[in-house]
Formats: sequence, C-alpha cells, structure tokens
Amino acid sequence: MALIVQKFGGTSVANPERIKNVASRVQEYRSRGDQVVVVVSAMSGVTDNLLKLAREIMPIPSDRELDMLLATGEQTTIALTAMALHTLGLGAVSLTGAQAGIVTDGVHTKAKIRNITPRQVHDLLDAGNVVIVAGFQGQTTDGHITTLGRGGSDLTAIAMASALHADLCQIYTDVDGVYTADPRIVANARKLDEISYDEMLELAGSGAKVMQSRSVEFAKKFGVIFEVRSSLNNNPGTLVKEETQSMEDVVIRGVSLDKNQAKVTLVAVPDKPGVAARIFKALADAAVNVDMIVQNVSHDSDSRATDLSFTMDKPDLPKATRVIDSLKPEIGFASAISDEDIAKLSIVGVGMRSHSGVAAKMFETLSSNDVNIEMISTSEIKISVVISLGKCETAMKAVHSAFLET
Amino acid sequence: MALIVQKFGGTSVANPERIKNVASRVQEYRSRGDQVVVVVSAMSGVTDNLLKLAREIMPIPSDRELDMLLATGEQTTIALTAMALHTLGLGAVSLTGAQAGIVTDGVHTKAKIRNITPRQVHDLLDAGNVVIVAGFQGQTTDGHITTLGRGGSDLTAIAMASALHADLCQIYTDVDGVYTADPRIVANARKLDEISYDEMLELAGSGAKVMQSRSVEFAKKFGVIFEVRSSLNNNPGTLVKEETQSMEDVVIRGVSLDKNQAKVTLVAVPDKPGVAARIFKALADAAVNVDMIVQNVSHDSDSRATDLSFTMDKPDLPKATRVIDSLKPEIGFASAISDEDIAKLSIVGVGMRSHSGVAAKMFETLSSNDVNIEMISTSEIKISVVISLGKCETAMKAVHSAFLET
Repeated sequence: MALIVQKFGGTSVANPERIKNVASRVQEYRSRGDQVVVVVSAMSGVTDNLLKLAREIMPIPSDRELDMLLATGEQTTIALTAMALHTLGLGAVSLTGAQAGIVTDGVHTKAKIRNITPRQVHDLLDAGNVVIVAGFQGQTTDGHITTLGRGGSDLTAIAMASALHADLCQIYTDVDGVYTADPRIVANARKLDEISYDEMLELAGSGAKVMQSRSVEFAKKFGVIFEVRSSLNNNPGTLVKEETQSMEDVVIRGVSLDKNQAKVTLVAVPDKPGVAARIFKALADAAVNVDMIVQNVSHDSDSRATDLSFTMDKPDLPKATRVIDSLKPEIGFASAISDEDIAKLSIVGVGMRSHSGVAAKMFETLSSNDVNIEMISTSEIKISVVISLGKCETAMKAVHSAFLET
Repeated sequence: MALIVQKFGGTSVANPERIKNVASRVQEYRSRGDQVVVVVSAMSGVTDNLLKLAREIMPIPSDRELDMLLATGEQTTIALTAMALHTLGLGAVSLTGAQAGIVTDGVHTKAKIRNITPRQVHDLLDAGNVVIVAGFQGQTTDGHITTLGRGGSDLTAIAMASALHADLCQIYTDVDGVYTADPRIVANARKLDEISYDEMLELAGSGAKVMQSRSVEFAKKFGVIFEVRSSLNNNPGTLVKEETQSMEDVVIRGVSLDKNQAKVTLVAVPDKPGVAARIFKALADAAVNVDMIVQNVSHDSDSRATDLSFTMDKPDLPKATRVIDSLKPEIGFASAISDEDIAKLSIVGVGMRSHSGVAAKMFETLSSNDVNIEMISTSEIKISVVISLGKCETAMKAVHSAFLET
C-alpha cells in the first residue's frame, strides 16, 4: 500500500467521458490498496472562456478578481471527478486549494506556495476516500483565493506530494514520458526511464514542452520523485529524481529544439562599461524575456567596439526592436540586425561534466552536416547553439544520431 | 448615507453587457454616498449547464459534490461584477459565501443559514469598497461548501441585510414590484406600494412567482424590510414589511392564480379514523407536495363514507395516482378521479380579518360569472377556490374588478 498523488491536466479531463477514464485509472490504484490524491486542472477550454468573459468587461481585469474567476475552472473539475469516482463505487471527496490547506503569498495570478497543511486531506484519506484537490489554486492567510500561474497544477501535485510525504507523484500527460528528443522530429527518439532534476530543468528551459521549470525546481528543492507518464495507456513513464552515480555514465540525456526564438545582433557596440547593462535593463523593463546573450569580436576589429547578440521568444521581437531603436542615439551602435529564421538546438546531460570533447563532437557533427553555428552558449550540463531554422531538424537528427543512437 | 443590500438574479447578470448595467446601478447609489453590498446569482443558464455536465457523469450526483459544482456559478458572477465596477472607477471586492461569513447547516443542496459573521464585509465597506457576495451559497462550520436551494440568492440578500443591520434590502427582478394581480392577465392590475410579510407569503404560496416563501419568512422573522423592484428601470418597487394599522383598511391586497395544479378526488372513502393519515403519509413518502385538502360529504349519503379531494402541482399527478392506486386494496374507496383541468384562484389581504362578507362577495362574483367552485380552502388572510382551468382567467378578472377596481 502506497500513498500516490496523481495529476491530470486539462486535456485529460476535457469532457465527462475523459473524466470517467481518469476515474477508472484511479480505481486501478485504489483496488490494489493504494491511497490516492488526485490533482486536476480546469477542463481544457474553460480557462480561455473565462478569460474571454472577463475581457468583455475589462481589457485588463484586476488580478484578485481574475483569480476569483479562474479558480472556478478547477473547482468544476474536482466536483465532476468526485462524481465519476462515486459511479465506480469509490468514496471520493473534492477539495478546493483553500480547503486542501494550500497557503500562498498574496501575489495574485502568480502566487507562490508558502506551506501546505494537509490535515483534512489526511483525515479524508484515512477514512477511505480518494481526495480530489483543485490544482493551480490556493489561498492567502487572509483567505483570498489565489492562482499559481502557468504550470500551477503540476506544482500543486508536487507540493502536495511533498507535504503528504507521498510515495510517488505521477504527472499524467499526453506523451509517454520524457524522450531523448521530440519523436515527431526524430524517429529514433527513445523514452527515458529516468532523468535528473537538473537535466529536466535544462530541457524545460530549452524548448522541451513537458513541464514548467518551477515545478521541477520545487521537486528538486524538496526531493519529490515524480513520474511523467501518459493518461492514454499503461506504459511506465519517466522518473524524475536526484542525479545518481550511474546517470553520469550517459554523456547526453537528450536533445531539444526551440523553433520559437528570434535573434537580434547589435553591430559595433562601443566597448565601454555599462553599455550591456543599459541594454538589458531596458529590455527587462519592457518585459522582453532574453534567453541567450553572446558578445562577439566586432566585424570592425580596428575600433574599440564589439558585436552583441541575444535571443528571445519570437513574439517578443517587435518589442525588442522598438527598445533597441530607442537606445540607438544614446549608445551609438552601428546597426541592429534582427533574424527570425533561427532555432536553438541544445544537448543536455549530467554526464558531460565527466566526459570531455562533448562540445567538439557536437560542433563537428553540425559542420559535417553543413550546419553553420551562429551563437554558442554553454552551461555545466547543457550546450546550446543557434542555427538557421531551415536546417534545424536535419541538425537535430544528426546530433541525436551521434550521441544517442549507438 | 445608508447601507443598502442589492440583489440581482440570473437574468440581470446573464451576460457581460447586463453585468455592466448592474454596475451602473450600483454606481448611482455609491455616488450619493451609500455603502452597497451586492448579492448576485449565477448567470442565467450556467447552473443548468453545470447540472447537465454532472448528469452526464452520474444521474443522481452526490449532494456535497453538486454543491461544490454549483457554487462555481455564483463565484463566476461575483468576479465579473467586481471587474465591471472597477471599470467605473469604483473600489469593489468579491466574496464567496464562505468568505462573506455565511455559515449554514450541513444539509447539502438545501442548507439553512445558521449565522453570518460579516466582519470582512464590514471591513471592506469601511475601506470604501462595494462588496459583492455570491448568493445561494455558504459553508458549514467544517468548511464544506453548501448551497441554499431554490430562491437561495434572495435569502442570502435578506440574511446579509439582517446581519449587517442594513437600512434597506432591494431585490431586483424583471417586474416592477408586487401587483394586485398578474398584469399579463388582468389589464387593470396595479403595482402595490407596500405589502405585509404575511400577505406576501400567502401570495407566494398561491401562484404569484415573485419570491420563494422561505426568503419572506426569514425577512419576517428578523424584521428585514425589503423592496421588490425592477432592474430595467428606476421606478420605485413594492416595500415588503410588517403589517401596519393602515394596511387593514384595504380588504384585499391581491389576487393570485395558480394554473399548475391538479386535483384527485377519492370517492366514498370509509369514514374511519386513520384513513386520511394513511393516505397523506403515503403521498408525503412519495414526495408528492399536497396543497389543498378538502373532505366533502359523500355522494352516497347512506353509507359511512366521505369524499376526499386534494390538489398538488400538476407534474406530481402521475406519482400521486400511482400511490393512490396502490392504497386502494388497503383502504377500499370506491374510485379515484383525477382532474388536470383546474386552477386555484386566491384572494389575499390582512384586511379580511376585520371585514366580514369577503368570502360571500367572492363566491357571489364567481357565481354571477358562471364559474363553478369545486373546492374551497380558507386561512385567516386568504381564501382559495379551485375552479375549472377554462374559466380561470375570466374569474380572476371578475374578482379583481370586484375587490380592487373601485
């Protein structure tokens, strides 16, 4: 008998039929004697409909009232999920985030969990119930309803697993787990049995869409082992956990590709203190989320000037170019070149710490496939390159083949 | 400066446009310095959609989970209403029933309000906010979400007005107030400036659809004066309050008609103790809501047997006849005659206590209009007759003319 937290996202509970499927899965675990806490998101589409209603009243609604509004989405799902479990003859009780004891700070629409007092959850479990908790939401110590922002339901599940000292936390999604690469692009991609928190974080930050970084960070901080698996079948998924010795034997865990990036290069930026700070402060103030930053030697090697390139999410490019244009008189660079036809290709693995020549092998693979590298950025367990969008899938296949198909 | 509770039902908040209209009305009162608490229902149609979802999962869902589900309807409206007030530049904060301090018993789907601790409402009002409270809902002392059943939002408004010692409670609806008769039938019907709780109760119980009896009973018990008025215009409505001396000068306050009744007559029921008890116990067990009961002299005056007639809501007739048929062997009446083509016509007024001849005048009016009376039932301030459905509107007009068009 184990205590298991299971999280189901919006597509897994999109309609009554799917909610019944969720209930059947919970029943499997219950019938072997496990205690189960289910965390659910709003039915897919519901949150968007609520936002549409709100915007018909006010273009930018108050964050507190937006939370009050959006919290109804998950509250609807928990009630329906409890009913679906009842039809199977199981005891089941739904709880809102507040009722489940999830206390957050007061930053509406992106609140942080402060603590969880799962007394009522424990009591209900001990009385033989499945407990269904509304994901994505909590309340402040003053009793205001809050929501946790993007990826909030994953966070609820992992935080709840931590507070309950659960034996396992399962994140159900529409893929079988974490893959060595996106299987829609790389036919030979393999599902991973396990991956370390850090590798998962680097993948999340480089285009792999499995989970938001903050949930993984939370799991790492509190040592919550979780499994990413499919709600469509019974295949075992990928365990995400602390790095083990044996993980280092594998040089590269996975390859990820982010096609949603754009690049700006400032040519001949005067090479004097404070210039970079001025530029990136202005971009941050405009809420442009800058990813990679690389400072190159200037094309014009005579003057005391350098080239400066950075990437951001593609939709942020117009905002970024406006900011850059407005800075031109003050900073005095020669020109700004923006490029949307790029992609970021990354390889991730804790093993690269103890294996030399990883970068060389990656660059060589790209070169022998005629892929030009425009920018390079490295961390301890990740190497990212910016390449042309047109060649990015060829590049990804080649790199996957070189490192992961031995 | 007054403290006013304003309640808006589902049709008044049916879409963003109407919610904005509600906000404009609230603004009128705020701008003259009043403190305003707004109680809202779910947007019309929302509750039905939620029930439909629930029934796709389970024909008869658990009451607790149904409350969890339905409570989202009002929660959606309060958030949107707060936003609409923000667009007008007003401070506004929404509260769920639980947050507003509404504590109920644990009878899910038809909970009774036990007490209200409106500390937070007071605090928010004192800070200059309009407070928007979700109608129809509360929570138990254990923190379970409950709903109050039919007419629950009216009850929330009246109970909140009582707890806050509000100066006035306004129930906004789609009619201008309480009329001497349904204006769709009686062209000369007049809106009443005031009516006593007891008269309002008798009208509610005899087909006038303005409000549920329980809200009026609550208002009477706690002496909450409320005004029924239209959300579509600025006309003053009808004040519902404790009976005053001057109210007795008016013999009849209003005439009401209930076309939704059916009648069953048991012919030649043995006239022995316990028979009526047996019959009405069986009907109650089958959840048939019996209204009028009249025991007549038997058609067959030789035997020790009587005729027994009772009325109920039309949709309950099949259930009632099943119950009656099953009792026939045990009780041994001669036959059962059911009749759907009836209506109940009532006249209501505290003045009839001190004016004699009211019944006689009513019967005479009916007789001179060729309307046969099938059953008669009287209370201290009401006389109801069952007549044929085909003649009921003629009868209503005649009675209204005789008593109310002088």
